[in-house]
Amino acid sequence: MPKCVVLLSGGLDSATVLAIAKELGFEPYALTVTYGQRHQVEIEAAERVANAIGAVEHRYISVDLEAIGGSALTDSSIDVPKDRGHDEMQDIPVTYVPARNTVMLALALGYAEVIDATDIFIGVNAVDYSGYPDCRPEYIAAFEHMARFATKAGVEGRGVRIHAPLIARTKTQIIQRGLELGVDYSLTHSCYDPGSEGQPCGRCDSCLLRQAAFKELGMVDPALARTP
Amino acid sequence: MPKCVVLLSGGLDSATVLAIAKELGFEPYALTVTYGQRHQVEIEAAERVANAIGAVEHRYISVDLEAIGGSALTDSSIDVPKDRGHDEMQDIPVTYVPARNTVMLALALGYAEVIDATDIFIGVNAVDYSGYPDCRPEYIAAFEHMARFATKAGVEGRGVRIHAPLIARTKTQIIQRGLELGVDYSLTHSCYDPGSEGQPCGRCDSCLLRQAAFKELGMVDPALARTP
Repeated sequence: MPKCVVLLSGGLDSATVLAIAKELGFEPYALTVTYGQRHQVEIEAAERVANAIGAVEHRYISVDLEAIGGSALTDSSIDVPKDRGHDEMQDIPVTYVPARNTVMLALALGYAEVIDATDIFIGVNAVDYSGYPDCRPEYIAAFEHMARFATKAGVEGRGVRIHAPLIARTKTQIIQRGLELGVDYSLTHSCYDPGSEGQPCGRCDSCLLRQAAFKELGMVDPALARTP
Repeated sequence: MPKCVVLLSGGLDSATVLAIAKELGFEPYALTVTYGQRHQVEIEAAERVANAIGAVEHRYISVDLEAIGGSALTDSSIDVPKDRGHDEMQDIPVTYVPARNTVMLALALGYAEVIDATDIFIGVNAVDYSGYPDCRPEYIAAFEHMARFATKAGVEGRGVRIHAPLIARTKTQIIQRGLELGVDYSLTHSCYDPGSEGQPCGRCDSCLLRQAAFKELGMVDPALARTP
């Protein structure tokens, strides 16, 4: 089975992507990139998900994006917005982390090269996060093109494929697909502003998008039921 | 004066690039990305250089590329090659760090976005490091293209420029240009395998390339004269 690298945050989207990569016949190597204040909660969720879905290997890389700040997720002096309506989520929000997906894909590219993989999976989504520049299909295509020149695989003519299987799906469609594949969403963590024991706030954009999607499916977000 | 981000390792090449960025009329914001075992020595050299040449600001980001390894610079179990001839340096060497320049440019892109700069300088060189995939002009062009899609500046149509002013110069030409601009090369550190007190080994590819270039100019590498 061909190897692939899956960027795994421990959130709903990346858990679904890990399950999709397995379903497609890849041997998934999970990579969790930690940055900013949610560190420990994310690591625990990513570990639960990697174990439950079955990653061949799971590595963690920390990068202190707090050193450059510029986002509510990397600068504790910027508040995470709460209780926003869907329309308000369309602009580039303060939770956007400058160049985050480029940093994460770059690290995935390095990991892929070390394990001799040429496929990388990322859970970006252009429907709910249309305001994030680095969640758009044209960005993913441009990164894939760049990656052809960046590494040994590219020099050898093998190229690199960036898979973004959720890019055009709604959150509801993502959850439906994950449920079909047996993803246990109670293990995932998506909140931008968790409590001191890791419990989701239920009011940030990320929590609200999840809840609305589960509601549409006649369900309650199982992460809300997880007691810390 | 327009702002720019300069990737500053504290080595000979990036010190020259910092001086060139100033000469071109930019206000340089230096970014030092630390990874792997040479951490402290590099930080000190980068700090000396940023102070001497005059960076407006100097930030440090650490990223633990040791977590993925794959290089003599990020995996202490791989030896740094010594005493190699110039021909042997043409292949991709074990000192090549997978996706290193992509990771560093990605972090520079994030920093540029935070300070609202659209120009990034990097000291890559395709003459002495022709074996490194991510030192080639086509790689730099592809990264620049990708960056247009990755950030707010790109979305707003401002684009991002990646400047690689040393890419086609020999080491001797680089030093000549730096000397014209008043760069004090005794402050720089390029060695891949420094001693416990930071002194250059004098035998790795990086030390040998420096020494040969200074010799061609009838000089002794001033970094060799610096006592730790």
